Amino acid sequence: MYAEIITIGDEILIGQIIDTNSAFIANELNKIGISVYQITSVQDDKPHILDALKEARSRAQIVFITGGLGPTKDDITKHTLCEFFNDTLIRNEEVLAHIESLFKKYISTPISDINRDQALVPSKAQILHNNFGTAPGMWMEEGERVFVSMPGVPYEMKDLMTNQVLPKLVEKYKRPFIIHKTIMTYGLGESAIAERIAAVEDTLPGFIKLAYLPNLGKVRLRLTAKGQEKEVLEKGIKEVSSNLYDLIGDIISGEEEEGTIEAVVGKLLTDKKLTMATAESFTGGKISEQITSVPGASAYFVGSLVCYATSTKVDLLRVPEELIRKYSVVSAEVAAAMASNIREIMKADFGIATTGNAGPAKGDSESPIGTVYIAIASEKGVDVQKFLMGNHRTRIVQKGVHKALEMLQKEILKF
Amino acid sequence: MYAEIITIGDEILIGQIIDTNSAFIANELNKIGISVYQITSVQDDKPHILDALKEARSRAQIVFITGGLGPTKDDITKHTLCEFFNDTLIRNEEVLAHIESLFKKYISTPISDINRDQALVPSKAQILHNNFGTAPGMWMEEGERVFVSMPGVPYEMKDLMTNQVLPKLVEKYKRPFIIHKTIMTYGLGESAIAERIAAVEDTLPGFIKLAYLPNLGKVRLRLTAKGQEKEVLEKGIKEVSSNLYDLIGDIISGEEEEGTIEAVVGKLLTDKKLTMATAESFTGGKISEQITSVPGASAYFVGSLVCYATSTKVDLLRVPEELIRKYSVVSAEVAAAMASNIREIMKADFGIATTGNAGPAKGDSESPIGTVYIAIASEKGVDVQKFLMGNHRTRIVQKGVHKALEMLQKEILKF
Repeated sequence: MYAEIITIGDEILIGQIIDTNSAFIANELNKIGISVYQITSVQDDKPHILDALKEARSRAQIVFITGGLGPTKDDITKHTLCEFFNDTLIRNEEVLAHIESLFKKYISTPISDINRDQALVPSKAQILHNNFGTAPGMWMEEGERVFVSMPGVPYEMKDLMTNQVLPKLVEKYKRPFIIHKTIMTYGLGESAIAERIAAVEDTLPGFIKLAYLPNLGKVRLRLTAKGQEKEVLEKGIKEVSSNLYDLIGDIISGEEEEGTIEAVVGKLLTDKKLTMATAESFTGGKISEQITSVPGASAYFVGSLVCYATSTKVDLLRVPEELIRKYSVVSAEVAAAMASNIREIMKADFGIATTGNAGPAKGDSESPIGTVYIAIASEKGVDVQKFLMGNHRTRIVQKGVHKALEMLQKEILKF
Repeated sequence: MYAEIITIGDEILIGQIIDTNSAFIANELNKIGISVYQITSVQDDKPHILDALKEARSRAQIVFITGGLGPTKDDITKHTLCEFFNDTLIRNEEVLAHIESLFKKYISTPISDINRDQALVPSKAQILHNNFGTAPGMWMEEGERVFVSMPGVPYEMKDLMTNQVLPKLVEKYKRPFIIHKTIMTYGLGESAIAERIAAVEDTLPGFIKLAYLPNLGKVRLRLTAKGQEKEVLEKGIKEVSSNLYDLIGDIISGEEEEGTIEAVVGKLLTDKKLTMATAESFTGGKISEQITSVPGASAYFVGSLVCYATSTKVDLLRVPEELIRKYSVVSAEVAAAMASNIREIMKADFGIATTGNAGPAKGDSESPIGTVYIAIASEKGVDVQKFLMGNHRTRIVQKGVHKALEMLQKEILKF
């Protein structure tokens, strides 16, 4: 069974915004065994939307539409749905009451006819209540087929999807099982891995797909099994996976844990009741920002000193000037001192420090662009590592943050 | 003249990655007067890719394809292009030499046949040299139509697009002019604005489109004019814009500046030779991270103290415990002290401070979730503002960062 996603909005097609809704919807559908066949972004234009709807209907059983539900003239999704379903708009009293209550609570301007018109919905649509906004979601059935229309505002869409659309889909459709397993490797490129696992790839059962996901210098192998019998899928994934371990066990670093690295680290710290603090130079606060993006981070994250300037490293982080003169500001010695000092200053169990040159211009050091040091201090001592991370500023920072969190994870596991 | 973008990869359709390439490509095309009609994401599946190519060809003159150029079996773009163009793969010696040199320089494993096969390209394709990777870009003409295939790795694609594809497009096609103008408003919602500017919307010339872009509680109005005669477009935009000022001049806060707010602030600080430092609580380092994402930030960014824990505010930022007891940690008084102290401690011209509760759980304060204070300290004094930012953690942080940078921008302009 396939779904398709149609995102509506000129702002997507001129590149003014990145469509993040599709990935969220696809990921959620995947978890309940529904595959997305195609994602299509179209203009705020009735004939174009109609074409996309017709094509999606010819390929998929469930069609998602996001965007175009605002109160203004460039928002034409509801009128287009009426034309598509040969339907007319009627006023929904429940939606109207919700709009009026939102205005009373949050909006200082008086409610207008344009606002009230957001309560107009196709007569055949079931309403999906939008907790966070005035545009309702809509669920329209056509035999075994379903069309779901949601607002394009990400947090409104996410709430609707999670609390209303997914439960309705689970109830309506018998879905196949989908099982993923992701194996992480290190040290070899895509093609070298492909050569070593050719025997596995050539004999994959039809219900299992293998994909290579290269990212930040490492390749993850993702196995996806899909079918009606869960046991068959599990057995198949287990066999293929065991064959992979036979062929490339020496370069497998583990299997992907649930969630992002910052969530994994956060859970470990919470479970072990340990705390952390960071002293960031070239990562500019990004480790801290990533750590605090996890709800509940205040339980284990004490704080961070972003010491971009060398003077900050000396005055606030108390790194001896002598040390900087002798080894330069981008050095293992300075990284180690930064990690130890921030741990002490912030009274944390772990001190994480980064120093390096992300380019494009050279900073306070003579090191070539891309040279970075990362240090983790704990009561067991300091672990410092040097890396060469290429010459692409954004990627150097991304890689640095990821590497620091990986090193931290390893250290936490020693406690 | 229309372009379309086809992004290839199962990882997009299961929601494992967000497609950021399309927005970049669309934005770049827009700047040179080429509109994107549709963006389509399809699976790693030959018949599906062929269908998408055929449909795109029927609608657009330029078709971009990203992804599916890796060395492994799930990468099938080149074979599919051969089938589409009735072509065969031939070995390109220049590409082969490039692959071999990349391996020699950066990769420790020996080069294999699979790597060498990345030098196989459709015989009709012009090669676009990929500075950062082994998969070449390809340019295939079919009469007045062009198909461009690029790798899916964002930084490889961006380099190819910027340095090779755009210049070739500019040379090949006579393009219409596209002019945008974005007017920023405050204080009114979409629908209230729509009512007030109905007269302008009802009489828009055919070559101008008006879009409402609500974001972080404000609405931007984007005017887009498209046509062959630049003067006509400019005159049209000027007239419509002046009519808008007549109708809603009281709620217009300005016109959109070039670039992101962090780039605008960075330029202002550089020009005025001023520096800044931040003390971040609920924003968790995100202001600092955003500021340092701009190349050259070391010229004006001294550093940041992320003081998530109250103890850090006291011990390191030297906020008097007395003040916190009296007013609570989420208060105007504490925000002001944080901003003044960080300015002093870091010896910066501007000190920026944030304190608040982003939820979901209450932290060290009794303030309701969403209550935040932002302060900017300079030699002219301290500006503190209180905001209520809803109850959505990610949005509270985003809004807080944006608001802090806006307040900073305003302060810098006083110097």
